[in-house]
Amino acid sequence: MLPHQPHQPLPHHLLPHSPKPLFALPHHDGSPLYVSTQAPALGDTVTVRLRIPTAFGDVATVRTRANPDREPRFEDARRLGGAGAPDHGYVWWAAELRVENPVHGYRFLLGMADGGHWWLNASGLHDIETLDSEDFKLVAHPAPPAWAATSVMYQVFPDRFARSAAAALRDAPDWAIPAEWDDAVDQLPPGRSHQFYGGDLDGIIEHLDHLERLGVTLIYLTPVFPGRSNHRYDAASFTEVDPQLGGDAALIRLVEAAHARGLRVIGDLTANHSGHGHEWFQAAHHTPAAPESAFYYWLDPEQRDYQSWLGVPELPKFNWASTELRRRFIDGPDSVVAKWLKPPFHLDGWRIDVANMTGRLGDEDLNAEVRQAIRRTMIEVNPDTILLGEFTNDASVDFQGDAWHGAMTYASFTRPLWSWLCRPDQVPSFFGLPLGSIPAHTGEQFHRAHTRFAAGFPWRTRLATMNALDTHDTARFRTHADADAVPVALGLSVTLPGIPVVFAGDEFGLTGVDGEHSRTPMPWSSAAEPPVAATIDLYASLIGLRRAHEALSTGGLRWLHVGDDALVYVRETGHESVLLLATRAAAEVTLPDWVLPVGGRVGELPPEAGTAVCTVSDTGVRLVATGASFTAWVLPGVTIAPDGPAVSPRGLAR
Amino acid sequence: MLPHQPHQPLPHHLLPHSPKPLFALPHHDGSPLYVSTQAPALGDTVTVRLRIPTAFGDVATVRTRANPDREPRFEDARRLGGAGAPDHGYVWWAAELRVENPVHGYRFLLGMADGGHWWLNASGLHDIETLDSEDFKLVAHPAPPAWAATSVMYQVFPDRFARSAAAALRDAPDWAIPAEWDDAVDQLPPGRSHQFYGGDLDGIIEHLDHLERLGVTLIYLTPVFPGRSNHRYDAASFTEVDPQLGGDAALIRLVEAAHARGLRVIGDLTANHSGHGHEWFQAAHHTPAAPESAFYYWLDPEQRDYQSWLGVPELPKFNWASTELRRRFIDGPDSVVAKWLKPPFHLDGWRIDVANMTGRLGDEDLNAEVRQAIRRTMIEVNPDTILLGEFTNDASVDFQGDAWHGAMTYASFTRPLWSWLCRPDQVPSFFGLPLGSIPAHTGEQFHRAHTRFAAGFPWRTRLATMNALDTHDTARFRTHADADAVPVALGLSVTLPGIPVVFAGDEFGLTGVDGEHSRTPMPWSSAAEPPVAATIDLYASLIGLRRAHEALSTGGLRWLHVGDDALVYVRETGHESVLLLATRAAAEVTLPDWVLPVGGRVGELPPEAGTAVCTVSDTGVRLVATGASFTAWVLPGVTIAPDGPAVSPRGLAR
Repeated sequence: MLPHQPHQPLPHHLLPHSPKPLFALPHHDGSPLYVSTQAPALGDTVTVRLRIPTAFGDVATVRTRANPDREPRFEDARRLGGAGAPDHGYVWWAAELRVENPVHGYRFLLGMADGGHWWLNASGLHDIETLDSEDFKLVAHPAPPAWAATSVMYQVFPDRFARSAAAALRDAPDWAIPAEWDDAVDQLPPGRSHQFYGGDLDGIIEHLDHLERLGVTLIYLTPVFPGRSNHRYDAASFTEVDPQLGGDAALIRLVEAAHARGLRVIGDLTANHSGHGHEWFQAAHHTPAAPESAFYYWLDPEQRDYQSWLGVPELPKFNWASTELRRRFIDGPDSVVAKWLKPPFHLDGWRIDVANMTGRLGDEDLNAEVRQAIRRTMIEVNPDTILLGEFTNDASVDFQGDAWHGAMTYASFTRPLWSWLCRPDQVPSFFGLPLGSIPAHTGEQFHRAHTRFAAGFPWRTRLATMNALDTHDTARFRTHADADAVPVALGLSVTLPGIPVVFAGDEFGLTGVDGEHSRTPMPWSSAAEPPVAATIDLYASLIGLRRAHEALSTGGLRWLHVGDDALVYVRETGHESVLLLATRAAAEVTLPDWVLPVGGRVGELPPEAGTAVCTVSDTGVRLVATGASFTAWVLPGVTIAPDGPAVSPRGLAR
Repeated sequence: MLPHQPHQPLPHHLLPHSPKPLFALPHHDGSPLYVSTQAPALGDTVTVRLRIPTAFGDVATVRTRANPDREPRFEDARRLGGAGAPDHGYVWWAAELRVENPVHGYRFLLGMADGGHWWLNASGLHDIETLDSEDFKLVAHPAPPAWAATSVMYQVFPDRFARSAAAALRDAPDWAIPAEWDDAVDQLPPGRSHQFYGGDLDGIIEHLDHLERLGVTLIYLTPVFPGRSNHRYDAASFTEVDPQLGGDAALIRLVEAAHARGLRVIGDLTANHSGHGHEWFQAAHHTPAAPESAFYYWLDPEQRDYQSWLGVPELPKFNWASTELRRRFIDGPDSVVAKWLKPPFHLDGWRIDVANMTGRLGDEDLNAEVRQAIRRTMIEVNPDTILLGEFTNDASVDFQGDAWHGAMTYASFTRPLWSWLCRPDQVPSFFGLPLGSIPAHTGEQFHRAHTRFAAGFPWRTRLATMNALDTHDTARFRTHADADAVPVALGLSVTLPGIPVVFAGDEFGLTGVDGEHSRTPMPWSSAAEPPVAATIDLYASLIGLRRAHEALSTGGLRWLHVGDDALVYVRETGHESVLLLATRAAAEVTLPDWVLPVGGRVGELPPEAGTAVCTVSDTGVRLVATGASFTAWVLPGVTIAPDGPAVSPRGLAR
């Protein structure tokens, strides 16, 4: 890959406030090593733990600071194992917290033996007081299903995935510009949105072998309801699956076939708007007396003009003040939300489009009511479902656990990832940001951006947030990244907290300069060509790494080193630790051996994946990469101070 | 003062991410220099401006990034005066924003000629993306009265302020432990809360000369309703002024006398709880059928046990789900909130006690409804009133302009101030934080803490937030600070954005080790003693400085230098700039002359207040203090690039 020349090199003296190297800092996150339950109820008492490297300094006291009903409350923590216990490089502290609000924030206050103090919250260590929004959080709202965090998502854009034999027999709809599978994607109108390749749901069924080979566990289908576009985000109805896709029967077949292979399937709902061809909108447009009139925002009395998504007339915006709209769409077992989760369809959840704007207009903000109603209905018909919301920027405000399990966002992972790994190419838009070019960030900036946007999420929201290299709405990563950056990016996606996402076609090495262009028909015939097959193998291998080690889904995340070209971190449970090294260029990192559970081992550690070298010697742990690389090493799990309680990955036996 | 030895000295390499010295950074705040109106309506177009020092570098483009309905929108800014205009050290840019939500956030994106970019928001300059919560904000909720920002507050605790002749004729209440005016304050029960000195409202009237001498403009009375304690935060009624204070007639006399001198008066309401002696609580306690039953949270069916403030049984917590409670207390012109603002009482507003916890319990959060109802009622009976809320920690969540005009908080000013200026004395509690001692912070930490907690407020909330050295709930500043720190602390209080607060007695040099102890009876007889008179003169002088220069109330705030021992900043309007230097020890600071509107001047600038020396020469502006000091210099106002529009302190003529 090209050498990286940051536009504004950050001199070393501009690093964040920190008294020690990353690996020597106190650590806590919401994972089972640190919190006794992932799903407390209101009123429960939860144990929270803090791990302090001996190298950090002489800590005399540890307190928690919670904020019930927005009034601070401090509790003393106790040192596990007693004051004189051997520490193996770390001292653990624990405190009991009563969960008093559905989102119960807390932070740690460390009193140093020399009289100073430090605060620790989800954004890191602080020498001054910290913001409530960056507290760690216990969440007493209903928990997501356990499978959310262990999922590996595969995103399918149905028109472009695969065409079954039946598809050839269907006439293209009136709005469509039919295309052959090998035709290039038109980026401009009229082809944009209307070029119609005719992929269908049975086409997906025919390729489930491919998904199994990759090892993904969750199919995310972009909309399957009929619309007047190839993307179908302009729904004409929510009551049937588009006959062009094979109709309801094809969805039933697809979900059954997927479930039979252990794959789950979620759909995509537009809660912010419908299509202007929607039966509700058609009933109301020009007809003030229609019951559906209240579903939209009309700008004149004759209901000719209306509020629409970003002024696009094809996408009239829903008015969620309407109880009838709520009844039909989101409330209760007869609603749209419920229908497709129930027999015979059995979808495993929803991704909600434009979740950020849903219910928001001017001085009205009904977003919380709408998202909570959606989740309430889902729990009523099948609680073992997930709910993801699109919120492409700072998503923390809506993602505190009251409804959305995770975010489809680009702020915490995707944009920082590109900024670290892509060439600083000129681009007209960087995921919506008019930056002129892709930012050229250091690993330190990657870490800081990831932390800044993840810190606002409760831990379990982090675990269910989508870590995508790209999606149907963006350019493809490979367009701006060299081939050797792909394992690095994918490696980060499968090992940082969150749901890894494969946008169909990435595993074929596809490129695309924007969202439209990226909706490339799948080049199935190339699957066996050596470079493509190698890429598919890479995907299968790294997804396999993720699935083989639960620590990579639910384990704690501890950063050990952050440099210009190298990131070192570990995912940890009581069973297992996985050490990860991601580099974009040759790099060498040395860490003290107490940082990791390497015991008295000396010699080279065998990697579980990747090619970098990890050597343990008397002088510490040395990691060496000769270029862009992603490598994982499996180590023993974390044990707490000898007299402390035993740890299991599902929580602490108290 | 003592030398300051920070517990954890922060090496220079730990400064925040910044490419340049503070004075060379792009600047924006919500002040009239930068925003065309302080009170936009929804749908209005507002001009926002950015000022970029030429020394910052070659900026090619400036864009605003707003977030209407939580979807980012970018607008191009234009360079004022054209590309070739002379810059006098600064280039100004402007953009038009349409106010689409009641709180309309925005930030700036600077594109550098070299291809890099920077983000600017209320927390500063960033090399990575920023959080929505730290956006600058336009607020379309009803504005506070203009006098809020120009107020200087004087806090009176009635029992301890002054006793009129009539007071001697009253019998002490049954719960009281009568005290003589010169008795020491009891810190422990039973004296705590019950020691009764018998100050009354006519006593305040008798000392209005003193308040006029100080120059304060706004009296904040802690509660005047009857209770069963000397602090009266345990109201027994809201329908009459405590007869011990002189009753309703005395309040009418006090407000009339104050108004006649141009002083305003606000009261103090407990919206979180009443006293257990309150007529509503007494009616409901043990009587489930009483209409007042719904006003409280009962823990057993017989209504013996109940929810109270932090478990203190004397303070039963209000249940704001009750519409009858709302009707009696906060809704409409017949409510308690309204009654005391109307004739014949004419209070000028309210400070709300425990605003942070009001309406919050477990999974219920009615805080926004309650605070908005309070303000709605106030606007109905007299919009020219202010509403302040107690929220002693990170207050940003509730203070976005929908109700509270400003916060009584210690996070953004008071604690950072103590941490910079006080001795690092051991204290059992530092404003509620169990730190063991007063933190020993540098000026850099003061600046960072102030900025962190102020950044979440809209500009106008900052202007109405209370900048107190101490209050009736805290130790007094002078207890832990040397005499020479007082002008520094007071100087910061009267020149940083916010309402300066004098807690009665501070101007007499009183000390107090905690909130109880600080409620010292006013030592009126000592007013003429030279050291006390000198302190009163100091207060009058610095309050006079504040009142003489509108820039100190409503002008923009630009930080120029932040060091261990010195802070340099400027408050600016189109009319006038006031340069401020605060030092806690000898310090010397040199700035380039383009930083300030000193024109071609050479020589020593005459200070408006204080004793430090400012010399302008060919090598720049040199500020020298020989010890702890606070000094102000008055300079011309800010002009925008020649071809740009004219500026007035009330906004820009467009």
